[in-house]
This record gives sequence, structure tokens and C-alpha cells, in this order.
Amino acid sequence: METLIVILTFTAAVLALLFAVLTARKVMKFSEGTDLMKKISSSIREGANAFLKRQYKIVLIFFAIMFVVLGAMAIFDLLTPYVPFAFLTGGFFSALSGFIGMKIATASNARTANACREGLNKGLRVAFSAGSVMGFTVVGLGLLDISVWFFLLKFVFKLSPAEVTSAMLTFGMGASSMALFARVGGGIFTKAADVGADLVGKVEAGIPEDDPRNPAVIADNVGDNVGDVAGMGADLYESYVGSVISACALGVSAFGSVSAMALPMVLAAVGIVCSILGTFLVRTKEDASQKQLLRALSRGTNFSAILIAVVAFPMVYFVLGKENWTVYFAILAGLVAGVLIGQSTEYYTSDSYKPTRNLAATSETGTATIIIGGLSVGMLSTLLPIVIVAVCVLVAFYVSGGASSASAGLYGIALAAVGMLSTLGITLATDAYGPVADNAGGIAQMAGLDHKVRERTDALDSLGNTTAATGKGFAIGSAALTALALMASYIDKVKSIEGGMEKVADLSITTPTVLIGLFVGACLPFVFAALTMNSVGRAAQSVVKEVRRQFKEIVGLMDGKADADYASCVDLCTKASLREMVLPTVVAVAVPIIVGLVLGCAGVVGMLAGATASGFLMAIYMSNAGGAWDNAKKYIESGVHGGKGSDCHKAAVVGDTVGDPFKDTSGPAINILIKLLSMVSIVFAAVVVKFSIL
Amino acid sequence: METLIVILTFTAAVLALLFAVLTARKVMKFSEGTDLMKKISSSIREGANAFLKRQYKIVLIFFAIMFVVLGAMAIFDLLTPYVPFAFLTGGFFSALSGFIGMKIATASNARTANACREGLNKGLRVAFSAGSVMGFTVVGLGLLDISVWFFLLKFVFKLSPAEVTSAMLTFGMGASSMALFARVGGGIFTKAADVGADLVGKVEAGIPEDDPRNPAVIADNVGDNVGDVAGMGADLYESYVGSVISACALGVSAFGSVSAMALPMVLAAVGIVCSILGTFLVRTKEDASQKQLLRALSRGTNFSAILIAVVAFPMVYFVLGKENWTVYFAILAGLVAGVLIGQSTEYYTSDSYKPTRNLAATSETGTATIIIGGLSVGMLSTLLPIVIVAVCVLVAFYVSGGASSASAGLYGIALAAVGMLSTLGITLATDAYGPVADNAGGIAQMAGLDHKVRERTDALDSLGNTTAATGKGFAIGSAALTALALMASYIDKVKSIEGGMEKVADLSITTPTVLIGLFVGACLPFVFAALTMNSVGRAAQSVVKEVRRQFKEIVGLMDGKADADYASCVDLCTKASLREMVLPTVVAVAVPIIVGLVLGCAGVVGMLAGATASGFLMAIYMSNAGGAWDNAKKYIESGVHGGKGSDCHKAAVVGDTVGDPFKDTSGPAINILIKLLSMVSIVFAAVVVKFSIL
Repeated sequence: METLIVILTFTAAVLALLFAVLTARKVMKFSEGTDLMKKISSSIREGANAFLKRQYKIVLIFFAIMFVVLGAMAIFDLLTPYVPFAFLTGGFFSALSGFIGMKIATASNARTANACREGLNKGLRVAFSAGSVMGFTVVGLGLLDISVWFFLLKFVFKLSPAEVTSAMLTFGMGASSMALFARVGGGIFTKAADVGADLVGKVEAGIPEDDPRNPAVIADNVGDNVGDVAGMGADLYESYVGSVISACALGVSAFGSVSAMALPMVLAAVGIVCSILGTFLVRTKEDASQKQLLRALSRGTNFSAILIAVVAFPMVYFVLGKENWTVYFAILAGLVAGVLIGQSTEYYTSDSYKPTRNLAATSETGTATIIIGGLSVGMLSTLLPIVIVAVCVLVAFYVSGGASSASAGLYGIALAAVGMLSTLGITLATDAYGPVADNAGGIAQMAGLDHKVRERTDALDSLGNTTAATGKGFAIGSAALTALALMASYIDKVKSIEGGMEKVADLSITTPTVLIGLFVGACLPFVFAALTMNSVGRAAQSVVKEVRRQFKEIVGLMDGKADADYASCVDLCTKASLREMVLPTVVAVAVPIIVGLVLGCAGVVGMLAGATASGFLMAIYMSNAGGAWDNAKKYIESGVHGGKGSDCHKAAVVGDTVGDPFKDTSGPAINILIKLLSMVSIVFAAVVVKFSIL
Repeated sequence: METLIVILTFTAAVLALLFAVLTARKVMKFSEGTDLMKKISSSIREGANAFLKRQYKIVLIFFAIMFVVLGAMAIFDLLTPYVPFAFLTGGFFSALSGFIGMKIATASNARTANACREGLNKGLRVAFSAGSVMGFTVVGLGLLDISVWFFLLKFVFKLSPAEVTSAMLTFGMGASSMALFARVGGGIFTKAADVGADLVGKVEAGIPEDDPRNPAVIADNVGDNVGDVAGMGADLYESYVGSVISACALGVSAFGSVSAMALPMVLAAVGIVCSILGTFLVRTKEDASQKQLLRALSRGTNFSAILIAVVAFPMVYFVLGKENWTVYFAILAGLVAGVLIGQSTEYYTSDSYKPTRNLAATSETGTATIIIGGLSVGMLSTLLPIVIVAVCVLVAFYVSGGASSASAGLYGIALAAVGMLSTLGITLATDAYGPVADNAGGIAQMAGLDHKVRERTDALDSLGNTTAATGKGFAIGSAALTALALMASYIDKVKSIEGGMEKVADLSITTPTVLIGLFVGACLPFVFAALTMNSVGRAAQSVVKEVRRQFKEIVGLMDGKADADYASCVDLCTKASLREMVLPTVVAVAVPIIVGLVLGCAGVVGMLAGATASGFLMAIYMSNAGGAWDNAKKYIESGVHGGKGSDCHKAAVVGDTVGDPFKDTSGPAINILIKLLSMVSIVFAAVVVKFSIL
């Protein structure tokens, strides 16, 4: 059985990576277009490369320190010796996922723009292929990491299944830390550049978006790559790996059998195949409308989802045995919940529906009312996802036999997360293609291409907003389920430590340590959101000042006779975002340890539950408010409420600017936060058991 | 012992009410000033009266329906027959508290303005006396209700202590429902009028605040009374009563002795005496600076707080016996926590400190940055209060013997809430005087009084903002502690029902029903905030349209030759806010019943914990963000960043407008929500135990 697992997962991982390589090759065959396009694309590439290099240097310091800390803990027998190394590989692969994604994205932006000169379908294919490379790299590397470690721990070091999963859980901490750096750093970069470029360029100087005279325009495009691509890659790598491993770990503790541990890995492996098959369905007619484009993408993702839903049934039946066939419904519940959360996101943020249209109408009475309106759309939009997740958790728990064995039920919850993420390859592809299209539009504008080209890239980009909404639904939903599974893994972990059993004997919600942990945990997403928003604000202000300076000091810039100093803006964003990304990450790593040492393990469990609940809500609130503002603005630009340039539009632009850090910095970072908290808690469990005060 | 309690509490209640009557008489002796001032004041009074009358009619329908429902439940033996009546008196006294507060406030506004013509000190005394009437009416009525019911249940119906407290808890539900109606209805009214008046008057037409040409100006002043006074009165009546009764109930279940039940009541009674003594210290010199004014108020509240801190020690020692003297520290922890939360609120929202000053500076880069800045100030400001409450809960739990008996520890938490609210008489006086000063300023402006008068009322008003911040700290902190105590009471209640014991046997946070309840509960404050903000938005838009219409259609209005139709704006606000207040209240009553029927008692406990944690955070986030925006605007008006009329100021005005519903509608309403959820759960516990699905 174990051999079969290793072979299957390894093969699937290689398959995914191979598919990514082949797709990348296909993309690289397209032309980058004119010399100017090449030059712009290469500036963006250089900026992104420079950012990542400097980011990795800082991250390296963090990883070095943590490696020493974990090493010391291993020496004092608070950890197994595999942990420090597992931690490093998790971080490495997470970074690599982001890096490769960024590489292909910056290589495809000009190619997409150029392809759009020939037609919409070609543009879609290039951009979607770039997204696919990213999607399959993430899942491929994730499964590779899992299969290799599994092989090493099981067959080389001969550990028991429980020891295997326990060690593997810790590379999740490496992945989470890296993901948080990437999301926060990239998120701050992209929004500082975006806000800075918009505030001075669009609002003060009155020049259009992506105008080459704007000194922050390259930084803005770099930001799309380091934030939306590299950040997202690292993020979803972490979700994917985290959900699979926590399911494995819970499988071992629930059923004590290898087959329960095997199921999540097999599911992930088969999911990759289903995703690859789905990508072949993404194509459209030349004169496709926006709706047809969306249908083309949906066809791919829906096909993959239905396929895995069908295939999962015999898998469960054969792997877990016919007496456990109902566990299948846990997987199905996860899949369905992912789709439904995505649809709820779309309902609240797309201008085809009432909430965003009504929001656009509130601009009639000014800026204040559209801000109030957006905030309340965001808050209200938390209700449906909460109900969906609640039903999903209940179903997953009870169909997996939770009524008679709680750990079996928790295994079901973890499987629901794996189910939700099983087709990540293709959902991520449809998500990651957005920033590529966005960049292509920027290049089309800067290179002075035909108006038609920009229209086509805009069509692709706007579609990207919708698919991004769906992608976010999956990311947030799976984060919540995974966090719950990790909470269960944490309790298992504590129980396995000497003297740990009694520490988690009373987890009643009325126990003051649990209750206070809950309060503190619930507060963390608020604090974290505040820190990251402040960072964006500070970084954006420095960009604003630099852009204003260039407009003033560079003679002939506005007449197009002199070039802007793009590099200085990129450099500024890089420095600012790297400086700002450290504090939030340190907070996220330090808090669970401090809470543990003061309140003990019961306090940590409370904290994890509180952070998961409030983090889920805050992430949805912020993402959806941001999405609704963005699309309300676009809706007004389409000609209603006075259209572009009207007072309503100005109010909507303010809403959009407020929404930027909401949806692209703070919101997504909270997803990672809630998982990192669990990961850190698990790794430091032994320390807390031994040294906690309460 | 029981007789002593009744006599003591009854005497203290009568003393408080007597003090209120005497103070009211003193206020009424002052002159209302010129005929114009009398006319304006009477318009405000009429508007407020009309609103309350219509509000009570709607509330009456709700109470009638609930009375029938509760009566039916009593017939089917799901409740004791006292409950429906207790429910009615709770609602009645809560409404009465608000009504009397509103009466005295509307009678004092012109008197305060007129007193300010003679001098600042006199103005302060009139306004503060009006606040005192309100403060002591609330605590007097609260304790009266408690003592009379205690007498009836104990001596007339001869119930056991457990039955007494169980029946008394249910009049908390009446008080909470009424409070929610008052807070939500009044909150929507005041902010719709305020936002409407500002948006058209100040922003569009460019006339100053409180200009008599603005048709919404009377509605704005009516709003201060029905929202900030009547709403707050009903709200704090409910907090006060709720905290005392839940402490009594937990005392019975923890110690099984009458003395443990007596302590909270005795504490409340003695607190009234301390508060009355404190009021005599509130006076200042004629040429007092703002700082000296603040010191005058602080002297009173600090004196009362220190006095009760000293007196509480012998009380605990004698009532609970010397073996339980450490329980004293629970009371002290509550008192200190209340003060500290207030100080944290002041730090984040006063323009004497960095957060608000930095926020004002973000206006330099436009509206979007000040919005982002305010939101993050609000989010960040949740951290300190959470830590304060956490420490307070831990201390209160362990000093009361929680380590050996959980119910003793929970009794300690409830006592902390009582300690925090023991000096409510005077803290509420300093809080309620704000709207009176605000109204006085409006009257001074409208009646064309000397510029100096307006300066004095402004000084009083601005001071009111600071004391309101402290008051909010107490309101939010006590709400959280009371909610936790009520959660414990709920569990006790369920255990006392046949078949209930097993329903709450497993409250582990990893049990899916608890966990899902937690998620759903945490979501409620988000949804509730969204609903109330939307209501304000809708109501404000109708006011905007009406004001615009009057400016356009009434010939000579802008030249002062024709009068505005104030009544139509008042009427509009009344209708809109009454229409909008129903849904949130129905949601708050229905959700705990639905959650209970689906998820069972364990789910309800999870829901209460989740709602308390997330509600506490949301209330602080929203109140403090609103306060910071408000004061950042005032700070800019003081001359920095370009002063009044500059672009920075315009940006700050938008922030302030967004903050209005945040801090005066949604934020405070959440306080009530979290307690109402517990109260409803307690009353419907028997139904849930019998009929729940899970």
C-alpha cells in the first residue's frame, strides 16, 4: 500500500510538472512583439526579479534563525530531528512555486499583448497557458514534496505512520511562513504602487491608467507579478500541502490505518489528472463575447470538478472499504462548498447582481455613502459563506462517522478541504491568468498599440476579476476547513507528548483559558489587517511623494520629451514593502508561542478556534468589500450614473482605492495567518506542554 | 438576610430616584432664555416626543406578540408563569429610563444654552445636572425593578433562591429587546438626520452646521435626544440590570447561599451612594480651560470609583465571609478594567495622542488614505481592550476560586461586571451630558446668540466627546463580561431542565455543534452591523432628497425670508428609522431560537461565545474608528493641515460621515445584541432542550 502511494503521488507530481514545462514551452514560442513591448516587459521582469531576490535574502535570515531555533529544540528533544529540515523544504518549495509563477507570468505578459493583436482567442490561450504553468507548478511541487518526504520518512527512516505525518506537518510551517512573507510583502508592494500611481497620476495629474509618463507605472505592473502571482503561488502551495497533510495526520489518528492516510494523497494525485484534462476544454471562438469567454473557462473548471466528484466515489469505496463509503460525501461536501462560496462571492462582487449595482448607486450621494455601502456589502457577504461552511462541516463530520468517533469526524472535515482543493491545478490557472492579462493591458497601453488590442486585454482582465472571485472563494473556504483540521491535529499532537494528555483534557468553551484564548485569537485578524493596511498606507505615501517629485523636477516629462525614472519607484516599493513585511510575520509566529506559554494548550486551542472564525469572517468581509468597490467603479465607467469623470465616478474611485489593500493585501494574508498560527502551535507544542504557566 | 437585601436595595433605588427628582427640579428652575430659544427647544421636544410615541406603539406590538408567545409557553409548562410578566416589566422600565432621560435632556438644552450666556461653569452645572438625572434614573429604576421582583418572588410567591434568580433573568430579555429597539431606532434616526443635514447643508449648500436655513437641523437635534439619550438610557439600564441579575444567579449556583446572591445587589446599592457623593465634586472655576473642565468631571467619577473600591472590601469580607475575601479582587479587576478600557479608547480617539493625529495627517494624500487609516486605527484599537478583558477575566475567575470550582470562577466574572458598572450613576451622568451640550450649541446657533455662547457650548460639547469615549469603554467592557456571565447562566439553566444535563455535557470547542455555533455567532455582529449601516444609508438618502427638494422649492429659504419645513424632515426620519429598526431586532430574537433548534444547546453556547468575542471586537473597532475620524476632523478644524475648508478638511469630513453610523448606530447596538442573544437563549432554553434536532 505504502509503495503504491509513493508511486502514485510521485507520478502525479511529475505529470503535473511535466505538463507545466510543456505548457511553458508552448507559451515561450509566441512572439513578444515590438521592441518597445520587449523593453517594457523586460523592465517589469527586472523589477520583479530584483524584488524577489531581495525578498528572499530577508526571508533567508528568518529561515536561518528559525532553523537554529528548531535545531536547538531538536537537540533538547522537544522535536524530532527531521523537523528543521522539513521546515526548510516547505519554505523552499513554497518560494519556488511563487518564483516559477512569477517567471512565467513576466515572460507571458508581452506575449499575451502581442497575441491579442491577432485576436481574442489567441490572447486567452496564451494568458491561460501561463496561468496553467503556475497552477500545475504549485500542485506538482506540493505533491512532490509530500511524496519525497513520505518516502524518506517511511522507507528510509522507517517511522510509524503517526510519526510520519507528525514530521510532515512541520514542513507546513515552513510553507506557511514563506507564504505569509510572499503575500504580505508582495501585497504591500502591489498596492503601494497601485495606490501611489492612481492618486498622483489619475487623480492629480489627470493622465490615464498605465500612461508611460507616470513614473509609478512600471512599479504597478511589477506589483501585479510579485503580489498577485508570486504571493498567490506561495499562498496556495501552502493551502494545498497543508490540507493534504492534515488530512493524512487525522486519518492516522482516526482509523490507525494506512489506507485512511492514503486517501487524501490519492485524491490529490487523481485531482491533478482531472485538472489537466479540464485545461483542454478551455478555448473559445474568435469573436467571443465576455460571457462566452467566461463559459470557456467555466467549462474547464466544471469538467474537472465533476470528473473528480465521479472518480472519488470508487476511490473511497476501494481505499477505505465499503463500510466507510459514506466518507465520500465529505469530499463531495467540500467540492460543492467551494463552488458555492465562489458563487456567493460572485453574487456580492459582480456588477451583474444587485449588491454591486446598488453600491454604484450610492455614489449619487457622495463618497461617504459609497464607503459605508461597500463596508456593509462586505460585512453582509459573510453570512452565506458561514452557512455554507457550517453545513459542509456538519455533513463532513457526520458522514465520516463523527457521531461515534470524533476523530473520524474531524478526518472528514479535513477531507472536505482536500476535496475543495483537489482541482486546484485548474482553478489556480483560471485565477493566475488574471494578472497576466492585466499586465498585457499595461504593456499594450505603454507600447501605444492599437485601441482594439487594449479592448481585448481589458475583456480578458475583467473576466479575470470574476475568476479571481471564485478563486478567492476556494482559498478562503479551504483555509477555514484546513485550519479546523490543523486544530484537531494540534490536539492530537499535544496528546502524543508526555504529560500532554491532561493539558487538553478539558477544552470546554467555558473554561477561562479556552475562552480567553478565543478572545485573543479572534482579535488577531483585526490587528493583522490593521498592520498590513497601515503598511500599505505608509508605503503608498512614499510613492506618492516620489511621483510628485518626478512630475515637478523632470523637465519635459508631461510632454513626453523626457523619460520617467521608473526604477526609483520600483526600488522605493521594494524597500518599503520588505521593511513592512517583517512585523506582521513575526507577530504571527510569536503570538501562538506566547499565548501557549501563558495560557497553556487549552488556551492555544481557543486561540486557533477564535482566529479561524474571525479570520474567515474578516477575510471575506475585506475581499468582498474590495471586489464590490472595484466592480462598482467599473460599472460606473461603463456609462451609468454619469460614467467616467463624473462625480459619481470620483466617489467610486475612492471606494476602489480603499478596497485595494482590503482585497489584495489584508484579506488574503489573513488566510495564511490562520493556518500559520496552527502550524506554529503544532511545532512548538512540546515547549508549551513543558513550560506553560497555566 | 433576604429582608435586609430588599430593604437595602429598595432604599438605594428610592434614594437614586429622589436624587434624580431633586436634581431635575433644580434644572427646571433655570430659565430657557429668549422666546426664540424656547420655540426652538419646544420644536425639538415635540419631535422627540412624537418619535418616542410612535416608537413605543411599534414596540408595543412586539411586546404583545412576545407576551402571547411566552404565555403560551408558560401554559405548556416550558416556562414559569412569572416570566411573561417579568418580561413586560423589564421592557417597561427600560423604556421608562430612556423616556425620562429624553424628557430631561430636551428640557435642559435651551437652559444650558442660556446658562452659557452667563458663564461656562453655570453651563456645565446645568448640563451635568441633566446628565445626572438620567444617570440616577437609570440605576434607580434598575434597582427598583430588581428589589420589587425579588420581594414578590421571595416573600409573596415563596420561591427558592434558584427559582427567584431564574425568573428574574427573564426580565433582562424584556429590557434587552426594548434597548435594542431604542438603540437601533434612535441610532438610525440620529445618523440619518445628521448625515442628511451635513451632506446637503454643509457640503452642497455650504452653510454652517446648525444653520436654521437647513431643513434637517431640527431633526438633527431631535436625533441627539432620541438616539444618544433615550437609546443610551435604555441600553445602560439593560447592562446594569443584566449584570446584577446574572451575578445573583451565578452566586446561587456557585455557593448555593443567599449571601453570594446578595453581594451583587448590595454592591449596586452602595455604588449608588458613592455615585451621588461623587456628583458633588463636579464644579469648576468660571474661566476654566478645557483641561480643567475635564478634571472637574474626572474628579467626580474617580472619587466615586475609589470610594466603592475601598468600601467593597469590607462588604465582601462580611457578606461572603473571611474565607472568600479574595473575591474582592474580582470586583476590583472589573473596576480597573473599565477605567483602562476607557483610557485605551481615549488614546485611540483623542486628538491629544498619536493615532488620531497621524490619522489627520493621512488626509494630506486624500480621502482614500484617511478612510484606510481610520479603519486600521479602529482594528488596531481592539488589541488593548482584548488584553484588558482577558486579564480581568482570568483574575476574576481565579481569585473567586475558579481553580477548584468553575461556577465560583464564573461568579467572579459576573461580579467584575457589577464592579465595573457599580458607579454607573455618575459615569452615565458624564456621558449623557454630552448630547445636552450638543443640543445647547445647536440652539445657540439657531437663536443667533452671541459668538461667545457658542464657544462655551462647544467647549462643553468637545469635552463630552472624551467622556463619551470613557462611557463607551464601560458599556462595551461590561457588555462582554455580562455576556460571559449570561452564557454561564444559560448553561446552568439548561442543566436545571429535565433532560438538559446531557445536552451540555460536552461543550468542548472541537465538538462540531459548538464549533459551528461559534462560527455562526461570530458572523452575527458582522451581519447586524451591515443591516444597521444599510438602514442609516437608506434613511439618510431620503433625508438628502427632502432637503434638496426644500432648497429648490421653498422660495426665499436661502435668504432667510422663508422658513424651512422642519417637521417634514423629522417625520421622514421617524418613519424611516421605525421601519428600519424592526428587521435587526427580529433577527436578534429569532437567530438564537433557530440555532438552538438546529444545533441544540451546545450550538447555542458556541454561538454565544462567538458572538461575544466577535461582537466585542466589532463594537470597539467601529466605535473607535468613528471616534478617531470625528476627532481628526476637529483637529484639522483647529487649524492644522490647512484647517477648515481645505482639501484635507474635506477628506476628514468624509471620514467623519463614514464614522457616524459606525460609532453611533452599529457599534453600540452590537453591545445590546450580544446580551439579547443570551437572554433569548435563556428564556427559550426549555424549548430547545425539548425540540432541538441535534
